[in-house]
Amino acid sequence: MPHIALNSTEPGIRGLLGYRPQTARPLSELTEVLLRGPSTLPRGERELIAAYVSALNDCRYCSSSHSACAGAQLPGGMALVEQVRADPGTAPVPAKLKALLAIASAVAVSGHAVTTELVAGARAEGATDMEIHDTVLIAAVFCMFNRYVDGLATTAPDDPAAYAAGAQRLVMQGYVAPPADPGRED
Amino acid sequence: MPHIALNSTEPGIRGLLGYRPQTARPLSELTEVLLRGPSTLPRGERELIAAYVSALNDCRYCSSSHSACAGAQLPGGMALVEQVRADPGTAPVPAKLKALLAIASAVAVSGHAVTTELVAGARAEGATDMEIHDTVLIAAVFCMFNRYVDGLATTAPDDPAAYAAGAQRLVMQGYVAPPADPGRED
Repeated sequence: MPHIALNSTEPGIRGLLGYRPQTARPLSELTEVLLRGPSTLPRGERELIAAYVSALNDCRYCSSSHSACAGAQLPGGMALVEQVRADPGTAPVPAKLKALLAIASAVAVSGHAVTTELVAGARAEGATDMEIHDTVLIAAVFCMFNRYVDGLATTAPDDPAAYAAGAQRLVMQGYVAPPADPGRED
Repeated sequence: MPHIALNSTEPGIRGLLGYRPQTARPLSELTEVLLRGPSTLPRGERELIAAYVSALNDCRYCSSSHSACAGAQLPGGMALVEQVRADPGTAPVPAKLKALLAIASAVAVSGHAVTTELVAGARAEGATDMEIHDTVLIAAVFCMFNRYVDGLATTAPDDPAAYAAGAQRLVMQGYVAPPADPGRED
């Protein structure tokens, strides 16, 4: 049960976005730019970074939700997402993505854990400065969302189908959804 | 030296906001709403929560910057800010703020560390649901900023006067500043 009385029964971040629209707007825009905006990193890889960090932070709602989004947009599907979450070092992903995941993992510990060596390793595999920047910021943003979602004890569905359905909507519509039609069951 | 080549020598978050304007906009708006927008928590107390979390995360730029903003807006000034950073349990702040700082401290560890007891303790001291919500989100947001700023190894001035000057500007203008006049030394 959430720590505070929300104004809906929507799970995870969705209940929080509905509770505080003033913060929901910039949070949604930030997510849209980072995970879906113009970038040389494919959307599926960006979702994978978000899912991986959320799993490291043990945030069930965010890790399930972004794993589903990653699986829906990566050629390897959910099987690849599970391999990365189990051990990114041995998962069959490109070396550049592996190096970026190592940076994301460090960010989850502390900003100070991102070493010159980790950054040089990513650059050696072809990562650009902007890709390194965005990886650090995506990881940091999910350290925020994970704490927000779990710090207020929001609920998380058990059924994987709920996350798959949410992912389909996010892949189609993005994170800055049009205002809901109040007569429509969402 | 920053891990990536920024397009200015501005320290801390300022260099990062200038590097990636697409993410700077929602980040600045989020900070403005949370730290300066309408709220029953005084601006100085919200800045204190930001400074306290940033100190727990050992982020020198953010903790110095938001300590200066808190000191400029709290009746107890910088002396009170230093007392809170040293030990919030014994600092002469209202019991409600002390309880909210305890929640913020838990958020810095993990969302899961925010217990029902911590929330009940804040509520017993008069905290509203919205104040508890905003405390969790402010703390989570600074867990993001701290990781972003240190994860890219941005620079931080040594001189406290630099932070005091920055605080004066932020207190007057806020976090969503008008575009800088390129002819003006800022």
